Amino acid sequence: MAEENERIRKLAGWNVPLTIWWDEKKKVVKLIDQTLLPDEVKAIECDNWRCLEEAIYVLRIRGAPALGAAGAYALALEAQRFEGDEKGFYEKMDETKGIAKIRPTAVNLEWGVKRVYELLKENKGSGVGNLKEIALIEAERIVEEDIEANKKIGKHGLEIFKKIKPKHGEIFRILTHCHAGSLATCGYGTVFGVLRAAVETGLNIHVYADETRPLLQGARITVWELMQEQLPVTLNPDNAAGWIMRQEGIDMVIVGADRIAANGDTANKVGTYSLSILAKEHGIPFFVAAPTSTIDRKNKTGEDILPTIEQRDYREVTHVQCLRIAPHLEKDHVKNYAFDITPHENIRGIITEKGIVEYPDELRMREVL
Amino acid sequence: MAEENERIRKLAGWNVPLTIWWDEKKKVVKLIDQTLLPDEVKAIECDNWRCLEEAIYVLRIRGAPALGAAGAYALALEAQRFEGDEKGFYEKMDETKGIAKIRPTAVNLEWGVKRVYELLKENKGSGVGNLKEIALIEAERIVEEDIEANKKIGKHGLEIFKKIKPKHGEIFRILTHCHAGSLATCGYGTVFGVLRAAVETGLNIHVYADETRPLLQGARITVWELMQEQLPVTLNPDNAAGWIMRQEGIDMVIVGADRIAANGDTANKVGTYSLSILAKEHGIPFFVAAPTSTIDRKNKTGEDILPTIEQRDYREVTHVQCLRIAPHLEKDHVKNYAFDITPHENIRGIITEKGIVEYPDELRMREVL
Repeated sequence: MAEENERIRKLAGWNVPLTIWWDEKKKVVKLIDQTLLPDEVKAIECDNWRCLEEAIYVLRIRGAPALGAAGAYALALEAQRFEGDEKGFYEKMDETKGIAKIRPTAVNLEWGVKRVYELLKENKGSGVGNLKEIALIEAERIVEEDIEANKKIGKHGLEIFKKIKPKHGEIFRILTHCHAGSLATCGYGTVFGVLRAAVETGLNIHVYADETRPLLQGARITVWELMQEQLPVTLNPDNAAGWIMRQEGIDMVIVGADRIAANGDTANKVGTYSLSILAKEHGIPFFVAAPTSTIDRKNKTGEDILPTIEQRDYREVTHVQCLRIAPHLEKDHVKNYAFDITPHENIRGIITEKGIVEYPDELRMREVL
Repeated sequence: MAEENERIRKLAGWNVPLTIWWDEKKKVVKLIDQTLLPDEVKAIECDNWRCLEEAIYVLRIRGAPALGAAGAYALALEAQRFEGDEKGFYEKMDETKGIAKIRPTAVNLEWGVKRVYELLKENKGSGVGNLKEIALIEAERIVEEDIEANKKIGKHGLEIFKKIKPKHGEIFRILTHCHAGSLATCGYGTVFGVLRAAVETGLNIHVYADETRPLLQGARITVWELMQEQLPVTLNPDNAAGWIMRQEGIDMVIVGADRIAANGDTANKVGTYSLSILAKEHGIPFFVAAPTSTIDRKNKTGEDILPTIEQRDYREVTHVQCLRIAPHLEKDHVKNYAFDITPHENIRGIITEKGIVEYPDELRMREVL
C-alpha cells in the first residue's frame, strides 16, 4: 500500500502503514480497517461519505486526529466525485458535513470537516473544477500537518524524560490506555510520537498497555503497533493498572485525548479518568499528548464536554466480537460510556505541537491557544 | 439438582443452586461448573481429588469460601472411596492434601483441607470406617457453617446501611468487583449475603457489577446470580468504575476477599486495589465481606501475602474463551496477576460473621480473631 502515497508515507516514517489516504486512480478514500487488527492489515475503500461515516461509527478508523482527516476526506471525496454546477456542489457539501455528528466527543472530526467546508465557502464562485482541487489539497494538507504536529509533539515530549528518573535502571516504564499511535492519527502518533522521539534519541522505554475494554484498542492495536516497531510491551487488563503502577514501578502515564476544554480538562477513552486518579495516588506523573486541534475553546471546562459523551451500543460490553460474555441483558442494564473526563488537576502536562502545558489550567492553556 | 441435598439447599435459600455437594448414591462430589455460566447451569462429578484440583485450577469452582469446602470435600471424597487399612488411609490423605497448593492465595482452601486432615489425625486408631464418616461429616459441617456464617455476615452488614444516606432517593447504589455471591461460597454469599439481608429487610438496592477481566466473573456470574434473584443490576467495564462512581453516584463498594492479613490488608481479585483508591478519591465507603476463615493470622500484613499471589496463564488475557483478542504474544509480554492487595487504610470496614471490624488495623482485627 505504501506506493499509493509514497510522499506521505515518507513523512510518517516507521513501519506502521498509513491510516487514511486518497487513491487518485480509483477516486476513493482508503483506510486501514482497524476492527480487523491485529489479525489483518487490510484497507477498505470508500466511494461516498456514508461509507466513511459507517467506518467512523464502528471504529474502522478512530483516534481524534485520524478522525480530523476522515472528516476532511469525506468532503474531498464527495467533491472529487461530484458532477454538476456550483449550487449542487455546495448542497452536496452541506449534506456531507453531517458526518461530524457521528462521533460527537472527538472534536477533531468536526474540526477537519469545518476546515475544508469553510475554505470551500471562502472560494465560492471559483468553479467546481477549482473547488474539487481545493478540497483535496486541504484534506491532504491536514494529513501532512498532523504528521508534522505529531513529530513536534514527540520533540517537545522529550522534555518529560529529562525530569523523571526511571525507577528501573535506564528503562522508562510508561503506562498507556487505549491507542494513540500512528493509526490513531495520520501517522507517527501522539503518545507514540513521544515514544518514537524517545527511541530516536536513544532512550530505553518499556510500554505497559491497558487492554482497554470494551473494544480492546490497547490489546489489539497498541500492542500490535509496538510489536511492528519492535518496541518492548507488556499487556495488562485495565483493572490491574493500579497494582501494576505499584508492583512494576511505572514511571509515567501518557494518554491521548478526544477533546480538551479550555482549562485543560480532557475527554479521552473511558478508563482514563480512573487512571489519572491511580497515577496521583502513586505519585506518577500523568501526561496527555494531543495536537492543539483537539482543544475546543468553546468548552470552558469538562462540564461543557459532558453532554457530548456517547453511550455506545450495550452489546460492545456484553459481547467480544461474536462471543457473548454475559447473560442476555436489556440495553438499560449496561453502562457503556465511550469516554470520561479527566480534570486538569490530575494532569501533570499536556504535550502539544506548540510545547508542553505544565500543570494545565485556564491561564496556562492560553500559551497554546 | 435441589433434591440431591435438600437439607443444605434449604439452608442456603434463594434461587441459586448449591455450589458443591456430596452425592451419596454415586459416591462423587458434584459442583456447578462455573466456567459454563451464564449459558449452562450444569454440575460436574468428581470421583477423585485430581478432578477437584483441576476444577479449582480452571475456576469451575472459585471464591475463597467455596474453595474451603472443595478442599474439605477432596479429603472426604478420597476417604469414602478408600479401600484398605488405616496406614494406607492416612497415606491417601497425605497425598490428597496436596490440593491446597493449586491456588495458594485463597487461604480458605488450605483451611478446609487442614480442618478435615487434622480431625482425622486426632481420631487415629478409630478404624477406617469411622474415619470415613468423620471426614464426610466434617466437610458437610464446613458447608453448613459457611452458609450460617454468610447469613451472619448479611445480618451484621445491615449496619452499614444505617450509616449511609443513599444519593438517589431510597435506592442504595452498590458497586462490586468479581463475584462474592452464593456460588463463591457454599450458599447465600458474602457480599451477596449483605445484599440478600438488605433485600430481606425491605431495603432497595441496585448493584453495579464490574465485568472483572480477564475471566469475567462479574459479567458471567455476578450479573447472572443477580438476575436469578430478580435484583436490579448494571454491568460495566472495569475501567469505567471511577467514572461510574462519579456519574452514577455510587453509595458504597462491597467486595469479597481471598486472604486477609492480621492487620486487615486484603487480597482479592485483581482490580480490587484500584477500586479501593477510586472509592477513597470519591469519598465512597469501601467494605470487604468475608468469613473469619479468610483471615490468616500468620500473615501480619499484606507484604506476607505477596509471595502467594499467582501470575496466571497469559492466555487468559490474550484470549476470551477461544477468541484471540491480541497479537500473538510471548508469555513474558503479559501481566496476569490473579489478585492484588488492598491496604487496610483503604477499607472502611470488614464485615465478618462475628461483626464488622470498622477502620480495620492490627488492634481492631483482634476483635474477630
